[in-house]
Amino acid sequence: MKSLPEWLTQLETPFLLIDEARYQRNIDRLYQRVAQLGSQVRPHLKTLRSVEAAAYLLPQADHPATVSTLAEAEGFAAAGYRNLLYAVGIAPHKLPRVAQLMRQGVQLHILLDTPEQALAVTEFARQQQLTFSVFIEIDCDGHRGGIPPDSETLLQLAQQLEGQGATVTGLMAHAGESYNCRSEEAIRAAARAECDAIRLAAQRVRAAGIACPILSVGATPTAHYAAELESISEVRAGVFTMFDLVMHNVGVCQKQDIALSVVTTVIGHNTAKNWVFVDAGWMAMSRDRGTAAGPVDYGYGLVCDMQGAPLDVCLSTTNQEHGIISLPENGTLTPADFPVGSRLRILPNHACATAAMHQHYQVWQAESEQPRVWSRIMGW
Amino acid sequence: MKSLPEWLTQLETPFLLIDEARYQRNIDRLYQRVAQLGSQVRPHLKTLRSVEAAAYLLPQADHPATVSTLAEAEGFAAAGYRNLLYAVGIAPHKLPRVAQLMRQGVQLHILLDTPEQALAVTEFARQQQLTFSVFIEIDCDGHRGGIPPDSETLLQLAQQLEGQGATVTGLMAHAGESYNCRSEEAIRAAARAECDAIRLAAQRVRAAGIACPILSVGATPTAHYAAELESISEVRAGVFTMFDLVMHNVGVCQKQDIALSVVTTVIGHNTAKNWVFVDAGWMAMSRDRGTAAGPVDYGYGLVCDMQGAPLDVCLSTTNQEHGIISLPENGTLTPADFPVGSRLRILPNHACATAAMHQHYQVWQAESEQPRVWSRIMGW
Repeated sequence: MKSLPEWLTQLETPFLLIDEARYQRNIDRLYQRVAQLGSQVRPHLKTLRSVEAAAYLLPQADHPATVSTLAEAEGFAAAGYRNLLYAVGIAPHKLPRVAQLMRQGVQLHILLDTPEQALAVTEFARQQQLTFSVFIEIDCDGHRGGIPPDSETLLQLAQQLEGQGATVTGLMAHAGESYNCRSEEAIRAAARAECDAIRLAAQRVRAAGIACPILSVGATPTAHYAAELESISEVRAGVFTMFDLVMHNVGVCQKQDIALSVVTTVIGHNTAKNWVFVDAGWMAMSRDRGTAAGPVDYGYGLVCDMQGAPLDVCLSTTNQEHGIISLPENGTLTPADFPVGSRLRILPNHACATAAMHQHYQVWQAESEQPRVWSRIMGW
Repeated sequence: MKSLPEWLTQLETPFLLIDEARYQRNIDRLYQRVAQLGSQVRPHLKTLRSVEAAAYLLPQADHPATVSTLAEAEGFAAAGYRNLLYAVGIAPHKLPRVAQLMRQGVQLHILLDTPEQALAVTEFARQQQLTFSVFIEIDCDGHRGGIPPDSETLLQLAQQLEGQGATVTGLMAHAGESYNCRSEEAIRAAARAECDAIRLAAQRVRAAGIACPILSVGATPTAHYAAELESISEVRAGVFTMFDLVMHNVGVCQKQDIALSVVTTVIGHNTAKNWVFVDAGWMAMSRDRGTAAGPVDYGYGLVCDMQGAPLDVCLSTTNQEHGIISLPENGTLTPADFPVGSRLRILPNHACATAAMHQHYQVWQAESEQPRVWSRIMGW
């Protein structure tokens, strides 16, 4: 048993704790896997949105990265990163902010999948005498956005853009449905479908004389199970750095891989109901109930002791600043096992949603006496 | 139809919009109601956590207010407010921060319901030569914390505290179960039970020679339906200033009372599926699905036009920065009614949870050409 550093028992609760060793291990695991398959990771930085955290993921300033907001793009650009894919369909009114980053020397790739967006891009490019770098979104599983790889719209879009104030830099697919997979075989099939969709789309666009050099796929489950990445330039994944109970339910990680937890203090009991009250409500955990439909429902999170060992009980209910741990009727644990003032760690359903509730993260490094504090880039 | 101010159509999306006229109207409604019943409102500031917003609720520096974190207490104290109830059971390690505010002249009342907490308070008070102002939490409906009004523990706690480094300033109950009421009659019964519990508790504590002058009840539904507030010193409510779809489902407000919405931009379509994509995902709306179990399930929010008129469609799915509006198969609306780049307003399930996702709020005042910006106090 590691001895707990003093700060961990004294810092104001609730707070978000990152286990740095697990973070590094999760990164190494995926980076090595993808490298062995001949591709590279373009990490999605949306989970932590932190410059300090990004240093582990981006060994050089031009290492490819993915962001979910222009606020992130601006924050990571200010930190020196130069190769960013803004992986949410571009809204026309956001183009001036994109242009401003481009003028600062940032390769900021934008994403689109409609002729209306392409028109807005080419018109704005003409006005501003700029050339935008565009990814076209390909739908591989009906999960969200994108156009089918065999659609006429794909070629129309590529031709509408290429050389008209834009370069079709790449094609992007996201197997979002893989989050709902319940077997390794299903995830492997999703990974295959994701790669096949993007390869078919690329073949058609290239046959039309447009190079579209970057083929980008990815979702955390498919990234961990793809059997091959032939012709795939890069793999995007985000939550893999932290993992969470949803990813554990999908089968992508063990509980002991989860690098993010919320530290909370016991603030009361209802002994008649076998309830323990803690100061982590949904403000600290988020309202995410991502495991509700999964093979195991962890409520608002899995309760662990301060060493991180799971206690086999869940945070069953949350209000804004209250959490309730509902102990099983005939279990071995009673409220007396959770004295007022004692501390617990809660593993989250969804690391992205939990991290989003915090402006700062406390990072536990094995060798260090004090936590490192990482900051989150806030807003849009 | 009001003409839209230009900023509303140009500001970066997504953003949180507050309709100031509705905010003021909602405040007036409850304040007048409670005054007519001979009591006063101790507003819960946790919904917006904003000093600018609090000015509408707190006409004087010593007007009673409620907070859910010490960060709020510190923020509102810095703005000059002096009468704050921290309405989450006190954790012993938080007492030094409470003491610091007390030394600055803030009447910061703390809440507890266990002998362990009372012991921590009296011990720390002795060390610091301070007298804490304590509210004891009374359970009126089995919803969350508190002790039964007829329990022996109540008298033990009061005697353990009074004169031992603490004053029992008040008793507090919260009818949290009233959020699940489905009729006015049920809410009225919840309000009666809340008042009755606190009056019974007060009678017993006072009979033991302890004055406990303040009797505090409240939840937004009961505050709006209590038929009488005899002997009740104050009524706490928070979400009533904004209202939301959960409160609409409970029957406490009309849709046109909801003062908070999220402004979002259309970023794409899937015409085959009748989907419209917007740039408000759960980062802008929160993961709160509070209407899921209600009489009407609004998904992640009710879609309105920019004037605020409901369009009878919901934000059905959210990812981190994507929202999907799923149009009904045979409805009158098609994706073509939502051009790329056009804007919508989304009413939230739960105003507290949605506001928590934003650091700043844009406030629309009828007479003003520019929005006012209110800031949120962040963290714990």
